[in-house]
Amino acid sequence: MTYCVGILVRDGLVMVADTRTNAGVDNIATFRKLHHFQGPDRFISLAASGNLSITQSVLTLIVDGLEDPASGRSETIYNQSSLFKVAQLIGRAVREVWRVDGPGLEEQGAFFDVQMMLGGQVGNGPMRLFQIYSAGNFIEVAQETIFFQIGEHKYGKPILDRAMNFDTDPLDALKIALISMDSTMRSNLSVGMPLDILFLRRGSIVPDIKYRIDPGEPYFHDLRERWSAALRAAHMAIPKPPYRVN
Amino acid sequence: MTYCVGILVRDGLVMVADTRTNAGVDNIATFRKLHHFQGPDRFISLAASGNLSITQSVLTLIVDGLEDPASGRSETIYNQSSLFKVAQLIGRAVREVWRVDGPGLEEQGAFFDVQMMLGGQVGNGPMRLFQIYSAGNFIEVAQETIFFQIGEHKYGKPILDRAMNFDTDPLDALKIALISMDSTMRSNLSVGMPLDILFLRRGSIVPDIKYRIDPGEPYFHDLRERWSAALRAAHMAIPKPPYRVN
Repeated sequence: MTYCVGILVRDGLVMVADTRTNAGVDNIATFRKLHHFQGPDRFISLAASGNLSITQSVLTLIVDGLEDPASGRSETIYNQSSLFKVAQLIGRAVREVWRVDGPGLEEQGAFFDVQMMLGGQVGNGPMRLFQIYSAGNFIEVAQETIFFQIGEHKYGKPILDRAMNFDTDPLDALKIALISMDSTMRSNLSVGMPLDILFLRRGSIVPDIKYRIDPGEPYFHDLRERWSAALRAAHMAIPKPPYRVN
Repeated sequence: MTYCVGILVRDGLVMVADTRTNAGVDNIATFRKLHHFQGPDRFISLAASGNLSITQSVLTLIVDGLEDPASGRSETIYNQSSLFKVAQLIGRAVREVWRVDGPGLEEQGAFFDVQMMLGGQVGNGPMRLFQIYSAGNFIEVAQETIFFQIGEHKYGKPILDRAMNFDTDPLDALKIALISMDSTMRSNLSVGMPLDILFLRRGSIVPDIKYRIDPGEPYFHDLRERWSAALRAAHMAIPKPPYRVN
């Protein structure tokens, strides 16, 4: 399984992804799920969950190029003129993988499972964040709905629902995403360290933060301890229920 | 959908259940999911999630009686000599409903979905808490694993994982279960008020708390507000991430 969060606030883009993959509980490995694409006019991040064979094939197609049937041009993540067009290209790549591998997967009873989040900055276009589905279609965040999650999303959703809005400082949003990741890792063994994180300031193509948090890293360790202690203090500070029988 | 939590700590049993049922998003109703059975030597609570037609049929069978094929005696929740035997009876009732309704449900593409939690005190036996599956088999809590959840369980699991152990005061456990319920209701529309709650002190057959919390009830409203405020304060108190690029 996988857990990735993407958040777009007024001042920038935050993405966090774990790295654990598993085929059953006894076949566990570490794979990067948050991928970055840098060019002279762009910084793009793509988080992927679902069947690893599908997401790896999609990545290869968007880097090596998919031919545009009209122009014959090879379309890649580096030569699209906007992030919207990158989202469309990834959608085409997902459908191409479906065309090749989908029927075979279904015959084996495996279902065609891929979800992606795409964020970044291309040229002078707006900074955007998309979620791409296994049909290749996609949606975008809005000021009222500033985050997407893919993979094992439920454990970490309550803190995201409560704690953020469009005006939240991006470093606070990153902190909240790390808390959400911590909650998920504590409750579900299939999500695990290390974590890959990104903070790209709005309008920039040079990330302020692009970091891998390894097990035992001091800040994240401290965040987990502080959060647990704060939750204990928070519920202890609430009075006991006064109920009797009604 | 449904969300129910059952907790067994040193000093007693806590159960919390919502009351919302839905068949799609446009067919929502309120049904009790936490059922109590009182007798001169017993107090038993049963929480049910899954297909309402199945859980209602099971309830009818264990109250009206299932014939014991060996003795011909009518077995009910009121005449079993231990809570373990009640769990076995409910397992039989689940399998009986499967025998009658299971094939028809499967033909219609509906899957035989029922999960129950059974807790309480029978005679001088130990206080126990069981989770019963759709095959009629069941498991019991232990000192290391003091709670069960049924239904929409993921949103509310992190706080339960962090905040409790066997020595937790039962009223604190109830408070934590209410926080867990609040997190679930905020993130998932299919879980909703009113809530039914129970606290049965260990060894007692008279509940200290047996209460329905209606929308707008002051203590629960206050708990929700305090918890939200405490979470905001908790994450604001954690320093911002110091990461750059690695």
